[in-house]
Amino acid sequence: MSKAELKNLIDVAAGRKSADLVIKNCKIVNVFCGEIEDGDIAIVGNKIAGIGKDYAGKKIIDAQGKFAAPGFIDAHIHIESSYISPEQLGKIIVPLGTTTIIADPHEIANVCGLEGMKYMLGAAKKTALNIIYAMPSCVPATPFEDAGAILEAEDMEEIFGDENIFGLGEFMNAVGVVNADEKVLNKILLAKKFHKLIDGHAPNLSGKNLNAYVCAGILGDHECMTVEEMQEKISRGMYILIREGSACHNLRELLKGVTEKNLRRCLLCSDDRQPKTIFDAGHMNSHLKICVEEGLNPVDAIQMATLNAAEAFKLFDRGAIKPGLRADIVLLNDLKNFFAEKVFIGGELVAEDGNYLPKIISHDISKVRGSVRVKNFSVDSLKMNLPSNKVNAIKILPGGVVTKKITAEIELDAAGDFIFNPAQDICKVAVVERHHDTGKVGLGFLAGYGIKFGAVAVSVAHDSHNIIVAGVNNFEMAFAVKSLIEMEGGMVLVKDEKIISSLPLPIAGIMSDDSGEQVSKNLERLHEIAYAELGINKNVEPIMTLTFMSLPVIPEIKLTDRGLFDYESFNFISITAE
Amino acid sequence: MSKAELKNLIDVAAGRKSADLVIKNCKIVNVFCGEIEDGDIAIVGNKIAGIGKDYAGKKIIDAQGKFAAPGFIDAHIHIESSYISPEQLGKIIVPLGTTTIIADPHEIANVCGLEGMKYMLGAAKKTALNIIYAMPSCVPATPFEDAGAILEAEDMEEIFGDENIFGLGEFMNAVGVVNADEKVLNKILLAKKFHKLIDGHAPNLSGKNLNAYVCAGILGDHECMTVEEMQEKISRGMYILIREGSACHNLRELLKGVTEKNLRRCLLCSDDRQPKTIFDAGHMNSHLKICVEEGLNPVDAIQMATLNAAEAFKLFDRGAIKPGLRADIVLLNDLKNFFAEKVFIGGELVAEDGNYLPKIISHDISKVRGSVRVKNFSVDSLKMNLPSNKVNAIKILPGGVVTKKITAEIELDAAGDFIFNPAQDICKVAVVERHHDTGKVGLGFLAGYGIKFGAVAVSVAHDSHNIIVAGVNNFEMAFAVKSLIEMEGGMVLVKDEKIISSLPLPIAGIMSDDSGEQVSKNLERLHEIAYAELGINKNVEPIMTLTFMSLPVIPEIKLTDRGLFDYESFNFISITAE
Repeated sequence: MSKAELKNLIDVAAGRKSADLVIKNCKIVNVFCGEIEDGDIAIVGNKIAGIGKDYAGKKIIDAQGKFAAPGFIDAHIHIESSYISPEQLGKIIVPLGTTTIIADPHEIANVCGLEGMKYMLGAAKKTALNIIYAMPSCVPATPFEDAGAILEAEDMEEIFGDENIFGLGEFMNAVGVVNADEKVLNKILLAKKFHKLIDGHAPNLSGKNLNAYVCAGILGDHECMTVEEMQEKISRGMYILIREGSACHNLRELLKGVTEKNLRRCLLCSDDRQPKTIFDAGHMNSHLKICVEEGLNPVDAIQMATLNAAEAFKLFDRGAIKPGLRADIVLLNDLKNFFAEKVFIGGELVAEDGNYLPKIISHDISKVRGSVRVKNFSVDSLKMNLPSNKVNAIKILPGGVVTKKITAEIELDAAGDFIFNPAQDICKVAVVERHHDTGKVGLGFLAGYGIKFGAVAVSVAHDSHNIIVAGVNNFEMAFAVKSLIEMEGGMVLVKDEKIISSLPLPIAGIMSDDSGEQVSKNLERLHEIAYAELGINKNVEPIMTLTFMSLPVIPEIKLTDRGLFDYESFNFISITAE
Repeated sequence: MSKAELKNLIDVAAGRKSADLVIKNCKIVNVFCGEIEDGDIAIVGNKIAGIGKDYAGKKIIDAQGKFAAPGFIDAHIHIESSYISPEQLGKIIVPLGTTTIIADPHEIANVCGLEGMKYMLGAAKKTALNIIYAMPSCVPATPFEDAGAILEAEDMEEIFGDENIFGLGEFMNAVGVVNADEKVLNKILLAKKFHKLIDGHAPNLSGKNLNAYVCAGILGDHECMTVEEMQEKISRGMYILIREGSACHNLRELLKGVTEKNLRRCLLCSDDRQPKTIFDAGHMNSHLKICVEEGLNPVDAIQMATLNAAEAFKLFDRGAIKPGLRADIVLLNDLKNFFAEKVFIGGELVAEDGNYLPKIISHDISKVRGSVRVKNFSVDSLKMNLPSNKVNAIKILPGGVVTKKITAEIELDAAGDFIFNPAQDICKVAVVERHHDTGKVGLGFLAGYGIKFGAVAVSVAHDSHNIIVAGVNNFEMAFAVKSLIEMEGGMVLVKDEKIISSLPLPIAGIMSDDSGEQVSKNLERLHEIAYAELGINKNVEPIMTLTFMSLPVIPEIKLTDRGLFDYESFNFISITAE
């Protein structure tokens, strides 16, 4: 801040000069004292100069008695899970009142490494939305699969000092922290060296292990499922990022544990939020609506989504309507539905009546496209030669993230390969390494997916984002994989070796360069076709379910490009059941 | 923190290694959730590793069910006002549970400039007490007097980066901030450049002026007198440092304004606290006792004195009993009287049963002694030649800081100089510049002091700390001044041109190198003699009252080395009344 800017700000605040903008007649949501205050807000440049009455402004906007709240902060989100780019996500969530997101680009980093991070940092500059990034702490997420990149402490150093990187993202390798693993310590010390933060991810961590995790300097956790877990983590000084996403719904449950005493330690986040959820329910405004439905005081709810998040992540330039802070302000019709009539970011009106106002300029994606680097793939890669027809299979459970390990008897051909039986609801599933053309293909069986024809392939497959494909025979599956390779990644439905629906995801094979509206529409259409044409089980989300079948750190049985992984023994197992 | 230290900390936390110390059987005061929790605290090095049960320790201390609270933080104090050195202050307040003070060495900086700061920083290293310093923002405090030093932004830069300097201390020149004065802006920008904080001091600042002050980045204020003032400042995002000192008592009143909603914005501080007050009432423990007396939940009270202060001043390594934080812990008998049975700082037991345990090693004072640099002073400097016997006089009011401007008719001799009349209760008062031997002497009259014999002189005189002397005639006064010059500063009572009591303050003429106990005893004796031998009014504190008569920024009339200052016109006035 230059001296002239500071002087101008003070001059406006003191009433000696006209503000650039005055938002008049607001009911200001004051998160410091928990009250609503009538007043005007004077803005100069990107900052709030003053709150009060009788400020002169070069421009006046009359809020007509609407509530003025600080812009909402999503304390933890993966942009990639929306399948859209940062610019396009900004376009759809800014009009809902979200002005800052704290994003962990864990998915793209697993595909493209630092190049992916650089793309995300660049793209963030093309949206009015403020995006504060984490440096993903666990790339690859596990040693049981092949990711596109490896980020050790020494790799991170190049860009770790970037002002838009708050520190290390959710430290999923909680076991590594608790065990004080060498490489984990290096990352933690890197964060300390740069005076940066470390966010957490530690489902069910408790007791001494929780102490160990916290004393490493990890600030928060968004994985709490129960009030009890939340209470223990708060008592150890962690911030709790209460999550309400497309897949995980913890808000209503955890709100039971929010008290006047621990409110300041509670934040709101979405973690994963798909465009459809955003269009149907909203973003942080939907969190706030749920909070109020559950009986929380609306100012307390807003405090969780603003001041508390700013404090936890040391974003001391925002989080409240206060002189000197960023003019990130949302005008709300009420404190029940939280409809954002106008949204200001850095003093600019950026959304009105649900519409995003700035022109969308897309960031160059050339360095993160072409990420599906598979040359030597053929139908032979999918062939099996099983000694027995009794196999271990992945049984899909409702919710689609946790699975059940089952054994099944299948039909085999003369070569020992799988013959699909439409009456049995078991199909073949494969994970094809796609980053380094290693030729690795993991094979297995999937029960409960319901597919009766063709194949489904996706280059989104947590957390390494190899290609995952499920289908009724090798030819359909191979065709789907090849189609994906040609598309540079995305989602594809195949029937009779023809593409019947697809959604290209050229950005690292995991994000579209299209708008949220278009992606949402395409994805909905793709779902419909998957049900109608491929016969996929209506209780199963055809794409998202598949993308989690490759995540080995979630129980009970998963498939990576290296094979079938058993969570209980935490090791690979044979397809053939004992 | 080295990798080995981090690993060791995690190993202890996880229970794989023995802690250095385990404090067993505590009732842990948890400031995150507002609860009391039974448990043990495992400590390694200077940090808390874990909280729980069954931690093995190389050393075990059984708390026998005592309350374990985080060490108390005084959010704003002037060490110099205690008249003792940092080491000696540590000795008397650490056993009361104070483990960190945020100190503004404004007084010594006014005398010795950066050399004074360096002495304070060095002395802080000789006490177990953690001292975080402010860089005094207003040296000199006003342009109406001569201080020993001038600290502009460019002067501060040399040591501003010191890790024990949090930023700028109480920005008393609120008018300068609101007016965006050039030199004030330079200081504010210096703090921003160093990513440091700015504390405030802004009595009665309100409305747009408050907006201007806050948008300059000023974090807190300790000058609130009323709940209304406090509420307005909180609503503008300021932290409120609720003060309870030797002179100012705001705690009971302001506690009426502390609510569940704004608690997190409230801190406790003492500002000025003399040894006698500390011995009689305590330090932060006394604040906590008052909070509980006034009906505040004791954990909330402790939160104000710990977590809230740590957050406000961004001391993220302390403020709670939490894994990874400094092991600054107080074992309390109860949450009513807050008697500290044991005090740990950085994992070391430093006080027990009210006794400070470390050996006291005094810091070298050679660079801050010899600060009374007056050579050309004689009785002639005190002579008056008044054209009229109707004069303006400073009338002492109860409390002794604010004065009343009165006019009085006095007796004059042939030369136009004052003749003391014991029946009138008006004496002569002079402020003698003592830093640069400029020969400046301000002269005036003091009413209500009650002195009947001799003179009283002090080299503590807010805020420039020239010599202030009051007495019944020029000879007694001159003798007192000369005695002070010989003593290198301090306090002296003179009768019949003999010293009848004195307290040397060799450190910058404002602090003793003796213990708190001794200073307190000497000061008490000095007071007794002042009443008994000099006849000073029993309702007046003989020394402290005098030290505030030179503070021109407090209404209504004061005396500096440049003359009589009228607060209302904010300018100098003649001794002779119109």
